[in-house]
Amino acid sequence: MSKMVAVIMGSDSDFPVVKGCVKTLKSFGVPVEVRVLSAHRTPEEAAEFSRTARDKGFGVIIAAAGKAAHLAGVLAAHTTLPVIGIPIKSSTLDGLDALLATVQMPKGIPVATVAIDGADNAAFLAIQMLALSDEALADKLAEYKVKMTREVMEKNEKLQEEIKAL
Amino acid sequence: MSKMVAVIMGSDSDFPVVKGCVKTLKSFGVPVEVRVLSAHRTPEEAAEFSRTARDKGFGVIIAAAGKAAHLAGVLAAHTTLPVIGIPIKSSTLDGLDALLATVQMPKGIPVATVAIDGADNAAFLAIQMLALSDEALADKLAEYKVKMTREVMEKNEKLQEEIKAL
Amino acid sequence: MSKMVAVIMGSDSDFPVVKGCVKTLKSFGVPVEVRVLSAHRTPEEAAEFSRTARDKGFGVIIAAAGKAAHLAGVLAAHTTLPVIGIPIKSSTLDGLDALLATVQMPKGIPVATVAIDGADNAAFLAIQMLALSDEALADKLAEYKVKMTREVMEKNEKLQEEIKAL
Amino acid sequence: MSKMVAVIMGSDSDFPVVKGCVKTLKSFGVPVEVRVLSAHRTPEEAAEFSRTARDKGFGVIIAAAGKAAHLAGVLAAHTTLPVIGIPIKSSTLDGLDALLATVQMPKGIPVATVAIDGADNAAFLAIQMLALSDEALADKLAEYKVKMTREVMEKNEKLQEEIKAL
Amino acid sequence: MSKMVAVIMGSDSDFPVVKGCVKTLKSFGVPVEVRVLSAHRTPEEAAEFSRTARDKGFGVIIAAAGKAAHLAGVLAAHTTLPVIGIPIKSSTLDGLDALLATVQMPKGIPVATVAIDGADNAAFLAIQMLALSDEALADKLAEYKVKMTREVMEKNEKLQEEIKAL
Amino acid sequence: MSKMVAVIMGSDSDFPVVKGCVKTLKSFGVPVEVRVLSAHRTPEEAAEFSRTARDKGFGVIIAAAGKAAHLAGVLAAHTTLPVIGIPIKSSTLDGLDALLATVQMPKGIPVATVAIDGADNAAFLAIQMLALSDEALADKLAEYKVKMTREVMEKNEKLQEEIKAL
Amino acid sequence: MSKMVAVIMGSDSDFPVVKGCVKTLKSFGVPVEVRVLSAHRTPEEAAEFSRTARDKGFGVIIAAAGKAAHLAGVLAAHTTLPVIGIPIKSSTLDGLDALLATVQMPKGIPVATVAIDGADNAAFLAIQMLALSDEALADKLAEYKVKMTREVMEKNEKLQEEIKAL
Amino acid sequence: MSKMVAVIMGSDSDFPVVKGCVKTLKSFGVPVEVRVLSAHRTPEEAAEFSRTARDKGFGVIIAAAGKAAHLAGVLAAHTTLPVIGIPIKSSTLDGLDALLATVQMPKGIPVATVAIDGADNAAFLAIQMLALSDEALADKLAEYKVKMTREVMEKNEKLQEEIKAL
Repeated sequence: MSKMVAVIMGSDSDFPVVKGCVKTLKSFGVPVEVRVLSAHRTPEEAAEFSRTARDKGFGVIIAAAGKAAHLAGVLAAHTTLPVIGIPIKSSTLDGLDALLATVQMPKGIPVATVAIDGADNAAFLAIQMLALSDEALADKLAEYKVKMTREVMEKNEKLQEEIKAL
Repeated sequence: MSKMVAVIMGSDSDFPVVKGCVKTLKSFGVPVEVRVLSAHRTPEEAAEFSRTARDKGFGVIIAAAGKAAHLAGVLAAHTTLPVIGIPIKSSTLDGLDALLATVQMPKGIPVATVAIDGADNAAFLAIQMLALSDEALADKLAEYKVKMTREVMEKNEKLQEEIKAL
Repeated sequence: MSKMVAVIMGSDSDFPVVKGCVKTLKSFGVPVEVRVLSAHRTPEEAAEFSRTARDKGFGVIIAAAGKAAHLAGVLAAHTTLPVIGIPIKSSTLDGLDALLATVQMPKGIPVATVAIDGADNAAFLAIQMLALSDEALADKLAEYKVKMTREVMEKNEKLQEEIKAL
Repeated sequence: MSKMVAVIMGSDSDFPVVKGCVKTLKSFGVPVEVRVLSAHRTPEEAAEFSRTARDKGFGVIIAAAGKAAHLAGVLAAHTTLPVIGIPIKSSTLDGLDALLATVQMPKGIPVATVAIDGADNAAFLAIQMLALSDEALADKLAEYKVKMTREVMEKNEKLQEEIKAL
Repeated sequence: MSKMVAVIMGSDSDFPVVKGCVKTLKSFGVPVEVRVLSAHRTPEEAAEFSRTARDKGFGVIIAAAGKAAHLAGVLAAHTTLPVIGIPIKSSTLDGLDALLATVQMPKGIPVATVAIDGADNAAFLAIQMLALSDEALADKLAEYKVKMTREVMEKNEKLQEEIKAL
Repeated sequence: MSKMVAVIMGSDSDFPVVKGCVKTLKSFGVPVEVRVLSAHRTPEEAAEFSRTARDKGFGVIIAAAGKAAHLAGVLAAHTTLPVIGIPIKSSTLDGLDALLATVQMPKGIPVATVAIDGADNAAFLAIQMLALSDEALADKLAEYKVKMTREVMEKNEKLQEEIKAL
Repeated sequence: MSKMVAVIMGSDSDFPVVKGCVKTLKSFGVPVEVRVLSAHRTPEEAAEFSRTARDKGFGVIIAAAGKAAHLAGVLAAHTTLPVIGIPIKSSTLDGLDALLATVQMPKGIPVATVAIDGADNAAFLAIQMLALSDEALADKLAEYKVKMTREVMEKNEKLQEEIKAL
Repeated sequence: MSKMVAVIMGSDSDFPVVKGCVKTLKSFGVPVEVRVLSAHRTPEEAAEFSRTARDKGFGVIIAAAGKAAHLAGVLAAHTTLPVIGIPIKSSTLDGLDALLATVQMPKGIPVATVAIDGADNAAFLAIQMLALSDEALADKLAEYKVKMTREVMEKNEKLQEEIKAL
């Protein structure tokens, strides 16, 4: 059976954005565990979670946080699993603070950063990682890619009517 | 045997930065193939490379590019393999253009972005991904983490002399 | 008869902005074809469109995209036609990501970039290009310029009443 | 014979960057006229040049300026020819000031903006515009594209030796 | 009698912000003339206005514009009167484009720039300039300063009640 | 008894943000005095307040201001007490102007800067400073930290239901 | 005789930039007094200088400062004379911090801001203000404008040789 | 005897900047302990240091780090002592990444942030905090302030000669 993905958010106020990530993982049949764990308010719990994640059967950790977003980096410090960071727009600064605090990691401790509020893509990236040793998952990704292409082309068709009316 | 990692750079002028990535991969014994392929100057070759990468035995694609850094995104468009993006500082804008052009990908096509000029971390991230199904590689990562800790503590020891002299 | 202008958008969600571009082109009598084509979700279709555009009678390609806006650059990679890029504000970052991802192109593959959400100006720029070998179109542009001047002066007249009342 | 391209720079200190633009135009056999004309220090001359450019046989105007780069916009105000803007890095702000002052034009007066210090691409863009009605020029562009592809592939070959030595 | 102040805006859509400037000037009894004049849509009229402003009895020109805000710079190019620039927030970029396009003027052609949307302060600055040779105006400014101090202290008093209730 | 904390805001329009700071201080039993004092509109009063603050029994000064936020720096210039700065978002620029104007102080005159609109944290920081010589206050901070941890864990529990329902 | 201009810099390290301002003022025959006065290190002296400047015969105050550049604002708080601010690049942030801290002033206390490191333009702006009531000075400005135009045209002539050689 | 100050840096490469902080603390006779401790490479040691700092006699923790500067925040998570953050310029981004990652902390866990590379001011701020309960230290700060004022005035004197020579 596939390894689990942990989805950690720094605050429950991040859940409306993070929700899309959890849904995408579930729709691909990936076992997922979701937690609210703060790098600053529950530092021991966050460290402990990350330290033991590999042994508990997790394959990837996804961390979502805003402002001075330390969560992904702190989790990455305690594990050798790949950690994906979702910078959340939760300050006045449009998420640029969270993006820089997530992506600009020092040598040896990478965080795989996706777009600001890019929760769905964190899920896709985790699935791509798991699919490296899971053919069935790789096939689902290939199907999804075909579906995306078809959807764009359908939208293109629909738009043609509107354009004629301009 | 482990899957291969492809390291693609948009221009040979990126090589001084990308070099660290290749060295790190080699030091972990990961088979690596390096290419200069431009999203804009060799679009057909770049697309072809990405489309066939999984079948050729690649597990991860690392893409380094500067300015309007489209390379990682373009490669990600043609594969279901995880693609890691290294934004390169190669314009007057300190690499912020390359960072945004790499990380702000649309839904369905993630790029796992590391720090500006963060070539070493792209390698570590790729190794973490491969280590999901490679115990020996996971052990090497754990050893490296121990080594990093020891190095910081040694540097701390050395600094004490300098501090007394202040 | 005048060459055609292709207006390509990366997502149908860009249409409310792009609409102004299409309308302006139509109002100048320029034949226009509109498509939803994504650099990331329909990369083959996008490349194919661009590769064959000149032969199909297109003179200019306009591409609108947001976030890591690769569309204009990807189209420019496959054609020698001039490509105009409209950076769309579609992330939290006010369109700065799309602007930099559109304008900071490497040597040899320019994208003629207009303002963020500047869809109307993409049309005017395309018309200026076509007018290089189309006297009638050049005359329409000259008339439009006179009309713009007159409108500003009329607005100035109207404002005088409001100012007296302050 | 092909229409002329005007290359206008706001200050002679911009010439080291602008030089590449002039060279590229000459290498494609495009007749070019180069001028130092400032939007602020020679406003009458700049306006006069632009107003009469079409009648004098110019097809495209390229304008390079730094800081509060008004030159391209001011020239665009007086002509219906396409105006290409090159934002020059000439202040402490890495050229971001010049980029925004060049690209963020109001409706009706577009400036086709290229990358900061992207003088070569301004030339390529001008050539693409002229090539809309000049088959020979279009052929040269197609040849140049092939040459770019070949150069990237040669650089790729050369790099392989260095990589083995790592 | 005091010299006149000209308040020029690039578009009538700037009037809601500019209104405060006109009101402040009127409240100090300064004669004011307001115009919509665009650097790009009415370049001849704008240049003509500025060129003749000193002779017509104007002492200061205030120019408000958004996006690639060239208006203040273009007016400054044609006069030796002091020109005050108000950067207007009218694009997606929070007015930063207008600020840089207004303030980063080249040597010899200054624009006295105030805060983004800082229309009132443009008026105060103009009044300070006129007050250099107008004692009565200088006295009014001194009175206004006292009034501002008193208002802050009254607000402080009022706030104390609210604070006790916390 | 504990030293007092002064909470100074540059304008009463800052009060909705500053309110959280005052409440937090009160909830920890710290004596607090709140004032509206502007660095620009009441410069004498602001200087006088700061100059005499230590003798009046204040231990910490908190200063909240927006835009060109000079208040914290001006207060710091007149005292040897620690001054905490709260950058307020009150312009179009998302508070970045206030952040830089507060934090980038020259050598010898520090301002302890907290997040944009981070009024609560200014209170916590002041309490931490006072707790250096107040055991009871230190104990309350320790309790608060435990409470924060517990709250995060409770939120985590609550979220689990929502996640199952996805 | 003309009113004096005060040139105040926050640190003697700003003098290499400020020098151009003093020279320009002297070359126009404007009496000038130069001071090092810090808003943070000599707040009383700075306030006292500004408070008495009008009575001492000053007409304009120019203030140059870097980082959290409060100097111009603090001087403006104590006078009704126009205050011109020169943001100095003296931190790692390219002068953007100083620009925002200088220009984003609150209602009632304007600072006439020039470009980052734009010391010469501060002088020109001061001269324009003084020339409002000094015909001789206004004539010198007009002459200078003619000279600037001539210089640009001479530079244009010289460049033509270089261009032919390309 | 005074409480100790801990100066923690994330990497020994930060020492050239941090040195000024240590020197300033020593010159005020404050006992100081300096450590290299990384939030990412030695997370356990960093957490342990912070958790036990109060009991070991520390009064203030100063933390210096660059890029995604998590160090100050991570230390603050484990203590109720005030933590001062020094954002270090160590990436291509001029220290803006470190500034935002240090200052934008969530509610309950403040970091007292000083200027980018503002190591001296971190020391002054720590001394101000300790001086709240240490009269002798407060007197030294007052003396230092007088010395700073005198130095500025001496620099002003010296500059007068240079100015006459202009």
